[in-house]
Amino acid sequence: MRIVVDAMSGDHGPGVVIDGAVQAARDFGVEIILVGKEDALKTELARHHTQGLDIRIVHASEVVEMHEHTMAVKEKKDNSMSVGMRLLKHGEADAFVTPGNTGAALAAALFTLGRIRGIDRPAICSVWPASMTPAAFVDLGANTDPKPENLVQNALMGSLYAEHVLGIQRPRVGIVSNGEEEDKGSMVVRDTFKLLRSSPLNFVGNLEGRDIPKGKADVIVTDGFTGNVILKYTEGMLSFLVKFLRRQLTAGALGKIGLVLMIPGAILMLPSLLLLLPNVRRMRRTVDVREYGAALLVGIDGNVLIGHGRSDATSIRNSIRTAMRVVDGRIVERVKDGLQHMQIGLAA
Amino acid sequence: MRIVVDAMSGDHGPGVVIDGAVQAARDFGVEIILVGKEDALKTELARHHTQGLDIRIVHASEVVEMHEHTMAVKEKKDNSMSVGMRLLKHGEADAFVTPGNTGAALAAALFTLGRIRGIDRPAICSVWPASMTPAAFVDLGANTDPKPENLVQNALMGSLYAEHVLGIQRPRVGIVSNGEEEDKGSMVVRDTFKLLRSSPLNFVGNLEGRDIPKGKADVIVTDGFTGNVILKYTEGMLSFLVKFLRRQLTAGALGKIGLVLMIPGAILMLPSLLLLLPNVRRMRRTVDVREYGAALLVGIDGNVLIGHGRSDATSIRNSIRTAMRVVDGRIVERVKDGLQHMQIGLAA
Repeated sequence: MRIVVDAMSGDHGPGVVIDGAVQAARDFGVEIILVGKEDALKTELARHHTQGLDIRIVHASEVVEMHEHTMAVKEKKDNSMSVGMRLLKHGEADAFVTPGNTGAALAAALFTLGRIRGIDRPAICSVWPASMTPAAFVDLGANTDPKPENLVQNALMGSLYAEHVLGIQRPRVGIVSNGEEEDKGSMVVRDTFKLLRSSPLNFVGNLEGRDIPKGKADVIVTDGFTGNVILKYTEGMLSFLVKFLRRQLTAGALGKIGLVLMIPGAILMLPSLLLLLPNVRRMRRTVDVREYGAALLVGIDGNVLIGHGRSDATSIRNSIRTAMRVVDGRIVERVKDGLQHMQIGLAA
Repeated sequence: MRIVVDAMSGDHGPGVVIDGAVQAARDFGVEIILVGKEDALKTELARHHTQGLDIRIVHASEVVEMHEHTMAVKEKKDNSMSVGMRLLKHGEADAFVTPGNTGAALAAALFTLGRIRGIDRPAICSVWPASMTPAAFVDLGANTDPKPENLVQNALMGSLYAEHVLGIQRPRVGIVSNGEEEDKGSMVVRDTFKLLRSSPLNFVGNLEGRDIPKGKADVIVTDGFTGNVILKYTEGMLSFLVKFLRRQLTAGALGKIGLVLMIPGAILMLPSLLLLLPNVRRMRRTVDVREYGAALLVGIDGNVLIGHGRSDATSIRNSIRTAMRVVDGRIVERVKDGLQHMQIGLAA
């Protein structure tokens, strides 16, 4: 299996990306194709022991920066995203991973690889970590104004992702809404509800906001506007809670004295904390967004995965593992097959 | 000041509502009019020392239950919501508080009190507690498919709420979107952005999901669909975090031994925890949804406040305090005035 990695477009430059790619080549025995400025990548790669690893470099002279408009992928013809995706297009690689500009990656994928026939609008599908059980979440921000048909297609693609990447049999599909009842939701959600109910998918109905972390569905369907807001709100909420606790707990003289007086007790707790360490590590891994790394652009005729711009080496390594699972799961072919069945299902 | 309290429509029956209303009458010296089945309310009221308090009962023979359709307010003409709102309509009271069915309360308000002239669709406006600073959040679920004009009106009403109920000078208004840049957002959000920029409001632009808890705006504007999802997601997220920590931390034999071994340290910490207690209490109050209690139906020609169905006595007491602030803030009149200024602002 051959995974192309865009070494240039992340926030932190090629160093961390190459760290993660080398780890993946070592841990998973996968062939890695690094795309970017050859000189820079060679220098970075020379810092690693790569003997016996299957890593090569494909030169791309340009980079689309994070702040650039999506159309930069057209102007900079030799940018690392487009060069990498062309390798997929020509059958020289199986999946492409980038920590770059999401809008630019989507545009490059549309220009270079195109949509799967029958899919009107691609979507961003990822594993939702803040939940009792992992679930496929789609759309995280590609299409802010979907039609009901788009959401049904997203439900199909998310369902195939849950089944063939996460290994969940007959995944339960739910749609985010402002109430459990069938008559709740925006107009688009209410129309989608009807289409999903008569589809062959395992539709379990509306999900209220409070259901999202509960594991009530294996596939969480929503529009790219709501999905993006929820994703970023989760991030903001967690960092708010930590800051809030820290500031409020230590406020005032009493708070500070109280904290200092806790030190002996805390020291006494240290040995037992060591016993809890494996649990803490597993907990961190469960809710760590880096565990799955990149999100899949579903609906594109090729395996394109987009990671966070701030991806570190662990995140890149795990993104490559997710890309491998996507390739193994043959998601693109299954979407093509599934669309035919869905049309039968929807017409019936 | 005279506040009408719907004693019948909450999940827990009239007992807790009357507890809260009696507390409010005592703490704030406000006149309370309890609406509901006279016999039941008299019995409950007899359990309290109400001498010197200004509390009376107005009989209403029917109740709209939580599960009933909103139209039940038309069929049950003598339901406690409609009876209470008629007191507002006839100038016999200043505000109405209900812990009942949100949809039914909205319908009753539209039938009985009507909209403010110039407001097309009412919205639900509340104080957002999960934030560094309190902010007015509008809409929490009344209008799932607003037009840009509706959102601009909500921004105006939220701004007046932030200024005259929360006491924030020239409140900063932001709109929830899927990116900071002006070109990000659903079509409705992008159109609203343009209208808000040319309005006389203190518009600070798009708020990403992660900005919501940061206190970047004093008024958080969004559609009722997104608002409702975020509100309920916050609830679900916090209870998920608690459950997740508890289950994961104590998993396995090592986890359980580790926790038991922490007991001596915890005992040693007890005295210092007492010193932290005031801080913990203040923290709880800051993020406690009960601190402000009910949300205001903005756009209705009268002060109607809807609390959570599960409201307890503290929540009812604080809802009455919020209602008093709304009356003092003369929100309805200010919305009427503001609409005239806005039209000048928007036309200019």
